[in-house]
Amino acid sequence: MSKKPLILITNDDGITAPGIRSLIDVMTSIGDVVVVAPDSPQSGMGHAITINSTLHIDKITNDADQFEEYSCSGTPADCVKLGVREILKRKPDLCVSGINHGSNASINVIYSGTMSAAIEAGIEGIPAIGFSLCDYNWSANFEHSKSYIKTIAEHVLEHGLDNGTVLNVNIPNLEKKDIKGIKVCRQAKANWEEEFDKRQNPYGKDYYWLTGKFVNLDHGEDTDEWALANGYVSVVPIQFDLTAHHSIQRLNTWNFNKK
Amino acid sequence: MSKKPLILITNDDGITAPGIRSLIDVMTSIGDVVVVAPDSPQSGMGHAITINSTLHIDKITNDADQFEEYSCSGTPADCVKLGVREILKRKPDLCVSGINHGSNASINVIYSGTMSAAIEAGIEGIPAIGFSLCDYNWSANFEHSKSYIKTIAEHVLEHGLDNGTVLNVNIPNLEKKDIKGIKVCRQAKANWEEEFDKRQNPYGKDYYWLTGKFVNLDHGEDTDEWALANGYVSVVPIQFDLTAHHSIQRLNTWNFNKK
Repeated sequence: MSKKPLILITNDDGITAPGIRSLIDVMTSIGDVVVVAPDSPQSGMGHAITINSTLHIDKITNDADQFEEYSCSGTPADCVKLGVREILKRKPDLCVSGINHGSNASINVIYSGTMSAAIEAGIEGIPAIGFSLCDYNWSANFEHSKSYIKTIAEHVLEHGLDNGTVLNVNIPNLEKKDIKGIKVCRQAKANWEEEFDKRQNPYGKDYYWLTGKFVNLDHGEDTDEWALANGYVSVVPIQFDLTAHHSIQRLNTWNFNKK
Repeated sequence: MSKKPLILITNDDGITAPGIRSLIDVMTSIGDVVVVAPDSPQSGMGHAITINSTLHIDKITNDADQFEEYSCSGTPADCVKLGVREILKRKPDLCVSGINHGSNASINVIYSGTMSAAIEAGIEGIPAIGFSLCDYNWSANFEHSKSYIKTIAEHVLEHGLDNGTVLNVNIPNLEKKDIKGIKVCRQAKANWEEEFDKRQNPYGKDYYWLTGKFVNLDHGEDTDEWALANGYVSVVPIQFDLTAHHSIQRLNTWNFNKK
């Protein structure tokens, strides 16, 4: 029996994206790999799951292939659920998602399908990492990302992660020689200043494209945005207990029940 | 000029859902209301946004109506973005989402379109609350929820919320006389044990429905699940800085850069 770790791979750009191919390359050098990824791009899907529609899975590799690969009609979170419950014969030792084409640093984590897959695995108690390269191009160069991804995945396999946490890893779009190393960070406070691009369809009806400008509001030097801007790979531990514990005491001064 | 607060209302069950009608009833007694809600159900959409498709808005009220109501082709988060940037003339004083048909307590907050709208407003710096009734029925009775919703909304308008937080409010499915009051809580540790319902389509191809069983793993008496099970309306302050600050120190012992 193989002693290699079992690694579930997914993403949100879809199974045909170059990013997931690079992630598969790295993971096959570490463990036994099963890929369950969306059959179409799912960017910006947040933590969507499919409850009002059916889900399909197609095995797209054959028995001669080195690893199994499945294409799924659902969201990244669906892929993890289906992978764990229906496809894998045992709980995986690691779930990795990506490599996303584009940053998931700071507030982008909230909208990210890549990270929703990692979070879903984390909820299931599986150590999980989302990887993103800060380059939106379909033809982005993922080569220099590979050694960092391997290092981080090996550390997680060796040490495990704290209960209730997963890692959000972002890689700067730089030449390998210009990357200074890996930095553990907190999520920067940032937001998107939306600008809707309003147009008219050929029948005179208005419609909108969502566009916007990313604004980093955080001057801290311990943030993921700072790390990326200064040539580091950022690693942010994130949690899915969303409770703002620091606010509970203040809310308890309000005396809701006496008004 | 009106001194009443400006309140943006949205939901994830769609603009035709009974739950949003009850929320509108309450909010028109407090302030000036604008409704921007999805034109179709968006349950389980998490924090999805529409970036690979266009967005449409239809005004469905006329000038004689007491408030403006818009139907939007997007997700709950899209509705908030469009409401704030394209429809409202000034930043609202409050954004409320719901009343959701079904619980968004504990881990459900992660999958919730209702809460994603509140979080989106929070990111924009708008005090925001998501309301849910623990009854999935379309014909659920929202009457007894109204006084609690009004109390909580008035407190938020009066005091504001801590920066970077929004409220997740869940209301037990009980008779009014059996509700004991409002309790400030933390998010319970819980998960869904998925069970995929595997079927075959008429052409012999397998497909799946996502189903599952909710499991509360948390024995604490300070959680939202405890409050709901014991007859209280639960109020959980949640945050969108997902950083697991308690994990940073441990990750910094790993020495990623020396391996």
